[in-house]
Amino acid sequence: MNKLKEKIRDIPDFPKPGIIFKDITPLVKDPVAVRLAVHHLLHPFLEKDITAVAGMEARGFIFGALVAWELGLPFVPLRKPGKLPYDVQSVSYDLEYGSATLEAHSDAFETGDRVLLIDDLLATGGTAKASCELVEKLGATVEACAFVVELDFLKGREKLEAYEVHSLLHF
Amino acid sequence: MNKLKEKIRDIPDFPKPGIIFKDITPLVKDPVAVRLAVHHLLHPFLEKDITAVAGMEARGFIFGALVAWELGLPFVPLRKPGKLPYDVQSVSYDLEYGSATLEAHSDAFETGDRVLLIDDLLATGGTAKASCELVEKLGATVEACAFVVELDFLKGREKLEAYEVHSLLHF
Repeated sequence: MNKLKEKIRDIPDFPKPGIIFKDITPLVKDPVAVRLAVHHLLHPFLEKDITAVAGMEARGFIFGALVAWELGLPFVPLRKPGKLPYDVQSVSYDLEYGSATLEAHSDAFETGDRVLLIDDLLATGGTAKASCELVEKLGATVEACAFVVELDFLKGREKLEAYEVHSLLHF
Repeated sequence: MNKLKEKIRDIPDFPKPGIIFKDITPLVKDPVAVRLAVHHLLHPFLEKDITAVAGMEARGFIFGALVAWELGLPFVPLRKPGKLPYDVQSVSYDLEYGSATLEAHSDAFETGDRVLLIDDLLATGGTAKASCELVEKLGATVEACAFVVELDFLKGREKLEAYEVHSLLHF
């Protein structure tokens, strides 16, 4: 994954002092790297019976839509509150300070859908865990979660121990 | 475009009374419709010398990333303020109430890039016009703007008269 790793830019002290932000914009600016990332993301699931792909707002829309496209599957956006116009289901979760909410349309999935969840980054796992709960609340099951980058030291994977987790790059 | 049009769901009174919101989630849930939309979006530009694709947060990331993928070009996300970690350039613009800002990294484009701007919806044109200005501020030129849906009665196209505008569906 070295070709991919060199496309992730470290930004020190963003969004706050002491945090090193993993910037994926150099990756999405390189069509060859995007192709590499998307095919590595979906490869473990080629023989699995996935029926839909979901992506978390906003960077998860980039990789999620591309994985759905390549697998020929529906794409379901999981959104921040107030963005989706139809009947929604939501899941709220705690952040370091305060809380956040994710929403999806109540008809986002078909009953029994087996969902591949895609995001660019697995950090503390809060958003990913809430996304899994949202998928399940909507009558579907989470087949696996796949991320471009995983920040191992934040132990987000522990929050997702009930699920298969696939990450391309570990920091 | 009838196959595509039937995938756009009207939601009355969202986000406020009197507005009919055009919901694209049924479209992105249908892989055949997504393929149709993306190929119609990019078709007029196949013989043009486009060098990068930009998409506006958040739904523009879905269609923008897919158009960039199919054209084999860099994708540049134009983001809401405070999301991008590196040096940014920004453009602010007026909304009906208050104002909004779009940001992109200062190295988002190469000098001389010819950019295809993608979003799901052309409404009043405020966001699209600001996006064009942002692209130009970064040393690139806007080759064209392409939208899945255009709300003709809001006359957004008039704000973009300096640019080529291509919309798939008109309401």
